[in-house]
Amino acid sequence: MRFTELFTKTRKEAPTDETSKNAQLLIRAGYIHKEMAGVYSYLPLGLRVINNIKRIVGQEMGAIGSTEILMSTLQNKDIWEKTQRWDDKAVDIWFKSNLKAGNEVGFGWSHEEPIVAMLASHISSYKDLPRIVHQFQNKLRNEVRAKSGIIRCREFIMKDMYSFAVDEKTHLDMYEKATEAYLNVYKKMGLGPITHVTSASGGVFTEKFSHEFQTLCDAGEDTIYVHKNGTLVLNEEIFNDSTLAKLGVKKENFDARKAAEVGNIFTFGTKKCEQLGLLFSDAAGTQKPVYLGSYGIGISRLMGVLVEVFADDKGIVWPESVAPFRAHLVALEGGEAEADQLYNKLQASSFKFQDVLYDDRSDKSAGEKFADADLIGIPLRLVVSRKSLEKGGIEVKKRTENESKIIPLTEALDLL
Amino acid sequence: MRFTELFTKTRKEAPTDETSKNAQLLIRAGYIHKEMAGVYSYLPLGLRVINNIKRIVGQEMGAIGSTEILMSTLQNKDIWEKTQRWDDKAVDIWFKSNLKAGNEVGFGWSHEEPIVAMLASHISSYKDLPRIVHQFQNKLRNEVRAKSGIIRCREFIMKDMYSFAVDEKTHLDMYEKATEAYLNVYKKMGLGPITHVTSASGGVFTEKFSHEFQTLCDAGEDTIYVHKNGTLVLNEEIFNDSTLAKLGVKKENFDARKAAEVGNIFTFGTKKCEQLGLLFSDAAGTQKPVYLGSYGIGISRLMGVLVEVFADDKGIVWPESVAPFRAHLVALEGGEAEADQLYNKLQASSFKFQDVLYDDRSDKSAGEKFADADLIGIPLRLVVSRKSLEKGGIEVKKRTENESKIIPLTEALDLL
Repeated sequence: MRFTELFTKTRKEAPTDETSKNAQLLIRAGYIHKEMAGVYSYLPLGLRVINNIKRIVGQEMGAIGSTEILMSTLQNKDIWEKTQRWDDKAVDIWFKSNLKAGNEVGFGWSHEEPIVAMLASHISSYKDLPRIVHQFQNKLRNEVRAKSGIIRCREFIMKDMYSFAVDEKTHLDMYEKATEAYLNVYKKMGLGPITHVTSASGGVFTEKFSHEFQTLCDAGEDTIYVHKNGTLVLNEEIFNDSTLAKLGVKKENFDARKAAEVGNIFTFGTKKCEQLGLLFSDAAGTQKPVYLGSYGIGISRLMGVLVEVFADDKGIVWPESVAPFRAHLVALEGGEAEADQLYNKLQASSFKFQDVLYDDRSDKSAGEKFADADLIGIPLRLVVSRKSLEKGGIEVKKRTENESKIIPLTEALDLL
Repeated sequence: MRFTELFTKTRKEAPTDETSKNAQLLIRAGYIHKEMAGVYSYLPLGLRVINNIKRIVGQEMGAIGSTEILMSTLQNKDIWEKTQRWDDKAVDIWFKSNLKAGNEVGFGWSHEEPIVAMLASHISSYKDLPRIVHQFQNKLRNEVRAKSGIIRCREFIMKDMYSFAVDEKTHLDMYEKATEAYLNVYKKMGLGPITHVTSASGGVFTEKFSHEFQTLCDAGEDTIYVHKNGTLVLNEEIFNDSTLAKLGVKKENFDARKAAEVGNIFTFGTKKCEQLGLLFSDAAGTQKPVYLGSYGIGISRLMGVLVEVFADDKGIVWPESVAPFRAHLVALEGGEAEADQLYNKLQASSFKFQDVLYDDRSDKSAGEKFADADLIGIPLRLVVSRKSLEKGGIEVKKRTENESKIIPLTEALDLL
C-alpha cells in the first residue's frame, strides 16, 4: 500500500489527555482514533494489526476443534435473570437501554449466558458433546474509569470461547488444550517468555477455578508473584499465607512484578447450564447439566500490551506476526524511480501489496520519513536513495537493530 | 468440515413466532439463532455466509480505492448534537444509555457523524483528498417493530462507506464508481438481473440526492415502479405526477413490484462537514467544507434477501459465491469408506475442508440426509452409496436441478 493512499497522518505530539504509552503511540502513528475515554476506533493500520491478531488466535482455537460463531450485542434480560446476573448489584458494568415497547435490553459485556442458552437448542444428548465454540466480538462495559489506553476500555474486541462437556474429566482435557492454545498464541507474538499462567480467584483448591495469563509489563494493572525458581507464579488474589502454606513455599522467595492480563480461563462446573436448562441425556437416559468452560482473550488489549512491551523511545516495534505490513519501503531523493519500480515489482509478485507500506510522499524530508518509519514500527525498513544506489542498492534495516546493510536491488524480492 | 463437527442441528419445524421465509429457513437449517425479536446470532454456517458476502463487498469497495476501518459502537453525544441528530425527535431509533459518570452515550445506528469528525483529524488540505473509507459493523436500531426476519433487524451487520471530495464534480465521479461497485456486488451474487437502481428521497432534482438498489422480491417492504420499457425504475417516494411530468412518461406504463432495498447511496453536499468542522484549504489557501457521500449495504439483510429470492419449497438455494460450502458430500449405507477416502483426499488437496460439508452422520437415514442437504442449500451435492458405487462412482446433483449424474470417484477432485 502506498502511504499516499492512507488517509491517516502521523503526529509529533500525543493528545494531552492520553497518559498511557500504548494509546499515545497508537494515536500518534495513526493506528487508532479516540472517540471518548475508553472508546477507540481502528484506522486502516490499526485494523490490520487487529486482523492479524485475530488470525493467529482463530488458527489456534480452530486447531483445538473450536468452531466460530457471532453472537449479538443486544441481549435478553430474561436469560441473565435466570443466573441472577441482570441486576446492577450483581454486575456493575452493564450498559442497558429500553426497547420502544418498554422492555429492557442489555448490551453484551459477556456472552456466557446467551451462548449457553443458545446451545440448549442444539445439544440434547451425550452424543452431541463435547463441543467448543468461539467468537470475536466487541464487548461493552460500563467501567467507572477507563485508563491504560486500549488495555482497559469501555468497548473492546474480545475472543471469547466456551467449552461444553459431559463431565469434569472431559472438561479438564479441553481446559488443558485451551491452555496450550493460549500459550501458543502468546508465543507466536513474541510474548512467550514473559507470559505466565497463574491460578486466579477461586484458586486451584475449589471446584470453580480459573487461571490467568499474565504478561510482565510495567503498564500492567496487576501484580503477580514470581517464585525465584521461576516455575511458580501466583496471582495477587491468592498470594496469601494460606496458599503459601498449602504449596509449602516461603513468601520471601517471591518477587512482585507488574503484569497485564492477556487471557483468562474459567471452569464453571455445571451450575450455569443447570440454571439455563442446558441439559443432556447420558447413555442411560438420565438428564444431566453440561459442564462449562469459558476462555477469553482481549484482542485489542493484546495489541496495547504488544505496544507497551516492545516499543522503544522512537516508537512502536511490532512482532512480525502482527505487524500491519512486513516491510516499510522508503523512497528518498534520487531513488524515487527505483523505489517505484521495486514497489511495482512487489505488487506483481506473490508478495502482495498487503505486505509492504511504500512511503512515496514527495513533500516529506528523509528525517521525517525515518521518524515515521520508527514510529509506525514495521519490522523491516527498505530505503532507496541516491546514496543507497551509489553504495550498490537498497539499504535494509530491522526496526530492532541500529545497523543497516546494502543489498542489490535485484535481491530485494528474495529477501522478502 | 464434517457434519458431526457442527454443533448445530436442523429442524423440521420453524419456530411459530417467525413468519418470514428467510428466518424460518435459516433457523431450521441452523444458520442463525433468534435472541429476541429482530436480533439474531450467527451460527457456524451463517457466519460463513456472512463472511463470504463481506469478502465480495470488501473486494469491490477495495477496487474503487476504499480503505477499511472499524468504528466503535459507543458514540459521543457531542458529535451528534452538532448536526441536530442526537434528539429522539430528530432520530427515533436511537438506543442510548448512561456512563457511570452520568453523561449519555449513544449506540451506533449510523456512523456518518463520527466518521466525519474522525476524518477532521486527518484531512486539512486539498492534497489529502479525495478519500474513501468503509467498515463492516453491527448497527443497533431501536425499531418499533422488527419484522421480515433478518431483512429488518434491531441489530444487523452493515457495510457503510463514506467518500470525501473537494467538490461536486469529484464527488459525482466517486458516486458513479460506487454505483458500479454496488452493481458488481449484486451481480456476483446472482441478483444482477433483478436489482434496479432507483432515485429515492430528495430525488435527482435536488442537490441532496440519493439512490436505492432495489431487488425484486415478494418479501420486500418497498414498492417500486418499473416502466414497461424496462429501463426506467422509480421509487414509491418520487412516483408522482410531478416526477412523471418532468420525465415525460405516463403512469399507466409502469408496473408496481415488491422489492427489498439491498443498498443505498447518498449525496450529502457540504453541510455535514461544515457542521462537524471537516474543512480543507484549497490551492489558494481558502478554507472549504468537504463534499460528503455515504454508501450502505446491509450485509445480513442481503443474506436474507438471497434466501427469499432463491429458496424453493425444499429449502435454501445459495448462489455459489456466498454458499457456506461449495459441495455437500453425503455418505450413505455401503459408501461410507469411499466417502471417507474422498473427504480425506479433498482435505489433503488444495481444495480445503472449508469448501466441503461432509455428512458423515451414522444415525440418519438417506431421506433425512437428502432433506437436510436440500434445506441447507449448498450448490453441489455428492452422494456416495452402495447404489452409486454399483453405477460406477459418485452421484452428482446441483441444488438447482432435479437430474443427477454418476461420475467415477477419480473424477470427483477434478469436478471441484
